[in-house]
Amino acid sequence: MRIVFIGSGNVATHLAVALKASGNEIIQVYSRTFENAKILAVKTGAVPVNDIGSIFCDADLYIFSVKDDALPIVISQMPRTNGIWAHTAGSVPLNVFSLFKEKYGVIYPLQTFSKDRGLNFSEIPLFIEGDSDDTTRTLVGLAKTISTNVQYLPGYKRLYLHLAAVFACNFANHMYALASDIISNEDIQFDILKPLIAETAAKVMEMQPVAAQTGPAIRFDEKVMKKHLELITDPMVKEIYSLLSKSIHIHSL
Amino acid sequence: MRIVFIGSGNVATHLAVALKASGNEIIQVYSRTFENAKILAVKTGAVPVNDIGSIFCDADLYIFSVKDDALPIVISQMPRTNGIWAHTAGSVPLNVFSLFKEKYGVIYPLQTFSKDRGLNFSEIPLFIEGDSDDTTRTLVGLAKTISTNVQYLPGYKRLYLHLAAVFACNFANHMYALASDIISNEDIQFDILKPLIAETAAKVMEMQPVAAQTGPAIRFDEKVMKKHLELITDPMVKEIYSLLSKSIHIHSL
Repeated sequence: MRIVFIGSGNVATHLAVALKASGNEIIQVYSRTFENAKILAVKTGAVPVNDIGSIFCDADLYIFSVKDDALPIVISQMPRTNGIWAHTAGSVPLNVFSLFKEKYGVIYPLQTFSKDRGLNFSEIPLFIEGDSDDTTRTLVGLAKTISTNVQYLPGYKRLYLHLAAVFACNFANHMYALASDIISNEDIQFDILKPLIAETAAKVMEMQPVAAQTGPAIRFDEKVMKKHLELITDPMVKEIYSLLSKSIHIHSL
Repeated sequence: MRIVFIGSGNVATHLAVALKASGNEIIQVYSRTFENAKILAVKTGAVPVNDIGSIFCDADLYIFSVKDDALPIVISQMPRTNGIWAHTAGSVPLNVFSLFKEKYGVIYPLQTFSKDRGLNFSEIPLFIEGDSDDTTRTLVGLAKTISTNVQYLPGYKRLYLHLAAVFACNFANHMYALASDIISNEDIQFDILKPLIAETAAKVMEMQPVAAQTGPAIRFDEKVMKKHLELITDPMVKEIYSLLSKSIHIHSL
């Protein structure tokens, strides 16, 4: 397929590179900031552009991968084009396109993307939604060129999936960040936590998270929890410790 | 070394099996519940016992791996013995032994242990403390037979390490559990989150957690966060979502 990218952030970068590698053609990359468009354009052999009016109208697919808030604005400014318009956002409904285009859809990749980190796209779950069976089929077909894990998912379920991803990824990562702070104050390197973090994630590949739980909160070891709260100086971190311990305990009942 | 285990829980089980495999002799396993003592005794070729008075007095090392609250009680009931007494608890000070024994120490393994799950002990960081240089040396020597990552760590630092482990492991795992709940209500399998969980953990093997953060909270995407809060029905989970989003945002400033 001949594809235009609108946006050049983390998701756009990884998706464009994977689509190019699987034999698709990235013909153009649009970003408000020309430099950003250029970086991704260079990686994919595309033409960079920062004027939305200059977007080619003859591509097969336009992938919108911009901040959720910016999406309706960018869509409203798009020139008329052929092809399918699709966005990559977990929490934006399909019908964000409906006033502006026929043939539109969603390609939602369930993964955490950082620009400088390579990723094996073939294992990333991709969730597809289309305005018609025809669009859905086209997008599923394209998605299957880059991933072995492609599913149709209606938008209201995508919302919950995105919410779950915030917990499983963003919040879990924040726990790593708070752990890192706690020991760095004591001149202990973050490295020391890596086997624990790796094993914590590896365990739930084989067991349910509730069955994998260990530690003072699940044992309801009040003495340890009290001691830990005394060690924490930041009031918000204290609050997080109390609230999550309570939640773990309730969850185990 | 000839070793007696006091306790037969997750940590005792993994540690005893690893010590046995590295050529040490587990001569006895004590547990209040004879059945539990027996299970670990069978795995390690030890004698099971549920009467604390029957503990052999001629071992080189007694490893106490019981609940933190139970530790002082069990120690006070121990018969006089030779050898070193050592516990495995992150948050219990070394001097819990001082009224009852000369030669005592701590072997703290920084890992999450579930009985039914195999583990490569050689990568698990072990933190050692002893009442004297001599005891520390002996315990470090023993620890090095099962792990390539053995360090001396004073007790006050062990406290912070244990606290950090609660965040990096117990709280991170609870995030997986909450994510699992959110999608299971929508009939989406937990499996679908596994590549995301694996990548989230894999990222921090190479980057600092703060640099690895993605998602609506770090972008301060209020629209998405508001939508997510509307999807959550459980008031405590709502509170967790708000508090952690706030904390991620503050952390990024």
